[in-house]
Amino acid sequence: MFTQLGVIGCGLMGGSFALALKRAGLVKRVIGYSKSPSTTERAKKLGVIDVAAESALLAVSGSDIVLIAVPVAASEATFKAIRHLVEPGVLFMDVGSTKRDVVDAARRVLKERVGAFVPAHPIAGKEVAGIQNADASLYTGRQVILTPLPQTTAELIQKATDVWSAIGSHVLKMTPENHDAAFAAVSHLPHMLAFAYFSSVVKQPAGKDFLSLAGPGFRDFTRIAASDPTVWRDILMSNREEVLKQSQRFRHALDALEHVVRSGNVEALEDLIRKASDARAGWQMNAPKSSR
Amino acid sequence: MFTQLGVIGCGLMGGSFALALKRAGLVKRVIGYSKSPSTTERAKKLGVIDVAAESALLAVSGSDIVLIAVPVAASEATFKAIRHLVEPGVLFMDVGSTKRDVVDAARRVLKERVGAFVPAHPIAGKEVAGIQNADASLYTGRQVILTPLPQTTAELIQKATDVWSAIGSHVLKMTPENHDAAFAAVSHLPHMLAFAYFSSVVKQPAGKDFLSLAGPGFRDFTRIAASDPTVWRDILMSNREEVLKQSQRFRHALDALEHVVRSGNVEALEDLIRKASDARAGWQMNAPKSSR
Repeated sequence: MFTQLGVIGCGLMGGSFALALKRAGLVKRVIGYSKSPSTTERAKKLGVIDVAAESALLAVSGSDIVLIAVPVAASEATFKAIRHLVEPGVLFMDVGSTKRDVVDAARRVLKERVGAFVPAHPIAGKEVAGIQNADASLYTGRQVILTPLPQTTAELIQKATDVWSAIGSHVLKMTPENHDAAFAAVSHLPHMLAFAYFSSVVKQPAGKDFLSLAGPGFRDFTRIAASDPTVWRDILMSNREEVLKQSQRFRHALDALEHVVRSGNVEALEDLIRKASDARAGWQMNAPKSSR
Repeated sequence: MFTQLGVIGCGLMGGSFALALKRAGLVKRVIGYSKSPSTTERAKKLGVIDVAAESALLAVSGSDIVLIAVPVAASEATFKAIRHLVEPGVLFMDVGSTKRDVVDAARRVLKERVGAFVPAHPIAGKEVAGIQNADASLYTGRQVILTPLPQTTAELIQKATDVWSAIGSHVLKMTPENHDAAFAAVSHLPHMLAFAYFSSVVKQPAGKDFLSLAGPGFRDFTRIAASDPTVWRDILMSNREEVLKQSQRFRHALDALEHVVRSGNVEALEDLIRKASDARAGWQMNAPKSSR
């Protein structure tokens, strides 16, 4: 399907995409670039990429598909580095967890060439980062959101859909604005809450003793608190308006729970818990939904 | 080891204890009682108990080990129902997630007989309740906290330690006060946060659409939001002072994160996230610790 995949940012996401395309036989050769030469070298040693590029631009040269898998705040600099080789016919995608900022950067930098860029967000990840954790199955069974611009070439949207589908992902399309509002609610805020919660436990005088007693509920609730600081710094910062809105909603719900607990209103407390509990029990990840 | 186990409250916790003791060959016969006769009947049909008792008192009669596995708010009524058969030589335990209230109720009701009661909290559970989910392995590899009173018979503390150890649990001892402070931090508050967070998502106009996009991070973060409403109503209510203290600490940590996000202080945000992330990455459930 493709001759050469260029991966800019040889980390968990970029490396997993390369492995998935190789396993599916969708690409002949993978060329990779990372800011740190030792990372690029390691990616080559691990067989995730075949050729190490010395610049982002060289990773694009000769590629017919390019994945930009850098922290979202590095998107603009990456677009600048590669813009002279961005042309129609080559599929450019990213994997950023926020989309408005990436789309804005693409518009600013790529200008009339922006049609070659198909913004993408695969809903997949691990709490361990880095090329050494790359996994050909990371995207299997996961949703991938595309947020194309009005200028995005229809043919490239189709190609993007095909390549993600071919590695087992379910593709959805929405606007960057709707994407960022939704993921502030179901991903960005939970990360912020998990970071805040873990900090609050660790910082107390008896925190270490407390942690030695924690069980499986705690383990699962805090798993995302171990997420990559650079990645999440950028996500929370770039989507801060929506994240703060969601945090406000959360605080209202916490206020309500605290209020009934403090006032000793047993029935009201049970009612609030039951609504949340029933709703969560009825939720399923990737619930089938009508296509759009 | 024991002739007859009496289980009061044939739910997930009580049923799992019965199955574990049977599997380990630690008990000849299990007699069970639940407030709802249909539950007791189901426990018998499932082979979790051998004999259905018509009252809590009858479940104690002839038993040399008794597990009280009712929602914590029902502890006092249960002690009242059985007090005439509480005597030294019989091991009485509960499984409540809060200990000060249960210990207080035991003192009030059992008076000079309170020495037969060994308060216990196994750090185990599932987000699905009920006898049909009882599991002989629920307590394997889990910690069990005993919070004995000054009056608790040393011989019964030893018996309690032996029986939990025999089914694969690790036994720790602490005061009821330390127990409740620790579990407010690592268990009760996370449940309250998960209930609040799930409510806040569900209640928004686009909540359903948002939920269809949620991924594995969300799934794990919200797993405990599906927990049993009756059980958690009682836990949050009975340990409310400690829970509200912990919630206050959490709010301070969330304030700090929101502040740096709002003010655009990228370095400070990364620093806060990194501290939480490193601490969580270094945490392990049931990390080996010096015995006490």
